[in-house]
Amino acid sequence: MRATLLTAVRGIELQQVADPTIRFPTDALVTVTVTCICGSDLHPYRGDAPTAFPKPIGHEFVGVVSAVGSQVETLAVGDLVIAPFAISDGTCVHCRNGITTSCVQGSFWGAPDRASVPVGGAQAEQVRVPLADGTLVRVEPGTDPALLPDLLALSDVMGTGHHAAVSAGVTEGSTVVVVGDGAVGLCAVLAARRLGASRIIAMSRHRARQAIATEFGASDIVADRGADGGAQVMDLLDGVGADCVLECVGSQGSLDQALAVVRPGGRLGCVGAPFFQLPAPQLFGRNIGLQGGVAPVRAYLPDLLADVLVGSIHPGRVFDLVLPLTDVAAGYQAMDERRAVKVLLTP
Amino acid sequence: MRATLLTAVRGIELQQVADPTIRFPTDALVTVTVTCICGSDLHPYRGDAPTAFPKPIGHEFVGVVSAVGSQVETLAVGDLVIAPFAISDGTCVHCRNGITTSCVQGSFWGAPDRASVPVGGAQAEQVRVPLADGTLVRVEPGTDPALLPDLLALSDVMGTGHHAAVSAGVTEGSTVVVVGDGAVGLCAVLAARRLGASRIIAMSRHRARQAIATEFGASDIVADRGADGGAQVMDLLDGVGADCVLECVGSQGSLDQALAVVRPGGRLGCVGAPFFQLPAPQLFGRNIGLQGGVAPVRAYLPDLLADVLVGSIHPGRVFDLVLPLTDVAAGYQAMDERRAVKVLLTP
Repeated sequence: MRATLLTAVRGIELQQVADPTIRFPTDALVTVTVTCICGSDLHPYRGDAPTAFPKPIGHEFVGVVSAVGSQVETLAVGDLVIAPFAISDGTCVHCRNGITTSCVQGSFWGAPDRASVPVGGAQAEQVRVPLADGTLVRVEPGTDPALLPDLLALSDVMGTGHHAAVSAGVTEGSTVVVVGDGAVGLCAVLAARRLGASRIIAMSRHRARQAIATEFGASDIVADRGADGGAQVMDLLDGVGADCVLECVGSQGSLDQALAVVRPGGRLGCVGAPFFQLPAPQLFGRNIGLQGGVAPVRAYLPDLLADVLVGSIHPGRVFDLVLPLTDVAAGYQAMDERRAVKVLLTP
Repeated sequence: MRATLLTAVRGIELQQVADPTIRFPTDALVTVTVTCICGSDLHPYRGDAPTAFPKPIGHEFVGVVSAVGSQVETLAVGDLVIAPFAISDGTCVHCRNGITTSCVQGSFWGAPDRASVPVGGAQAEQVRVPLADGTLVRVEPGTDPALLPDLLALSDVMGTGHHAAVSAGVTEGSTVVVVGDGAVGLCAVLAARRLGASRIIAMSRHRARQAIATEFGASDIVADRGADGGAQVMDLLDGVGADCVLECVGSQGSLDQALAVVRPGGRLGCVGAPFFQLPAPQLFGRNIGLQGGVAPVRAYLPDLLADVLVGSIHPGRVFDLVLPLTDVAAGYQAMDERRAVKVLLTP
């Protein structure tokens, strides 16, 4: 089969590799229907994260089960399934607490599983899925293929945006600011609307992304950043600040932006990998809370899937470029140059 | 009248000063019945915090109203009142949001008020109270004088311990660890029990404090600290960690202790002035939340007062040394040397 490998900084190659096989009785094999490129894939691509080459890459996919191990109980060959970006057993105490990304048996695509056996990346034709009963979410037969982008968004970005909103405590009537207009930030807007926020201010400089934010439920767009952008947000919020700020970038600038617009006693929901220092005295003096992290997308998937299936949310709108898997390298270039919000790939 | 001044590092003096007077129509004057020394008073006393000498000191008191300004509506001469450690108007947006310590007109005892007029400290015979309607809480006439220590504890430590518990999200059935066995840590145990925690592990090395923690509802005591103490707590929690950790110290050691015993997805409630660095990647990787800060004691006071008046909580048990105000310097020494948990002073 063919799989995408990161062979060097900015070196994306679709290579012929050995077909995956069932290695454990709890494994399944999945033939990928749709996969995509994540903003976080750009960290190793750009050389921002230490990486051992060649690295199998990609961690979001929807596909069809092609084989199951002898202990797989809930899935059968032919099932359409969504794979979240982390592998989890669904039964350990952390999974039961809803933090599936801290699963005691957990692992990630493109890395060794709990038994140190390599697992492939998702930008490929087939993937071996460890702990298939816990990891995969089955989609009812007969689902409209037009929903595939929405289903794929549930692998990561929609669940991660939702995690930002949940972590920040968004509830009916909350005032919300979303910092970051990538796919996750846009999904955070959608998640905040879904949870009943009364006001959602999206900070975005890009016209196309502003349009999606508005479609997803943003009540206001602020295009400026830094002190100017912060002042405009504070004006919109009567000088008080927001109940909840969804920090969907992870840079020092975005954290500082978030802190500048949260009200005393408010909370930040942080889902951007944190390349920042936290100012403890400022948080303490203003009673600003902070929650979030690696999103337990698997735990949120059933509820979000139900909303996708009834058509009340369309997170797949974040995909603005569709390419065949053979053009995966062009997809990375488009995202790296911010010509695309998010690239969907079809093997 | 006489008031306590910090005249130098470790220089506590009860001096004759001018009687306070009504300066604004919203002021009240209060004759102090009981006051006390706070662990946070030790920061300037020890020279750990930059301080301009002489500093009027003390921020917790219960007393009797002796005069009211023309615009004071809810209080009358003769009323018994509790003063929280921060001055607040009770009407601004932050007060209405429950963050009275961020009041737009707020200030603190022993510092200038909103109009830059000095306000005295609480370790004194009389105090001018700005924004009296917002700041003070009236106690029903006929209240048993034996409850005075409990009422006084509502000025700060009980409300602050409660803030730790609320900030950490303690609710029915939570597993809780309390780091710190000062008066606030002990009150945090009591607050966690009051909120329905199913298990409360108090970390304390001091036999007398352990006894109060147990009386306040701790289910387990862990005397060791650091790696050993952390391992013992984790053993008690089946290796999972606590839902909620109440960090009532503020040092790097206590924060690290808290992080070592919180479960993935759990939350720290932080109320010790933060002399620590926050490890953002660790918080993010394990989805550990953080909330807390300068406790909005005024907002919590009515509910906690109701429990004191019916006798369901006795936070005044943290006072283990009672001295006349004339011995205030000896009180500081006793707390500085950890011979007393908390010293109550009677003018």
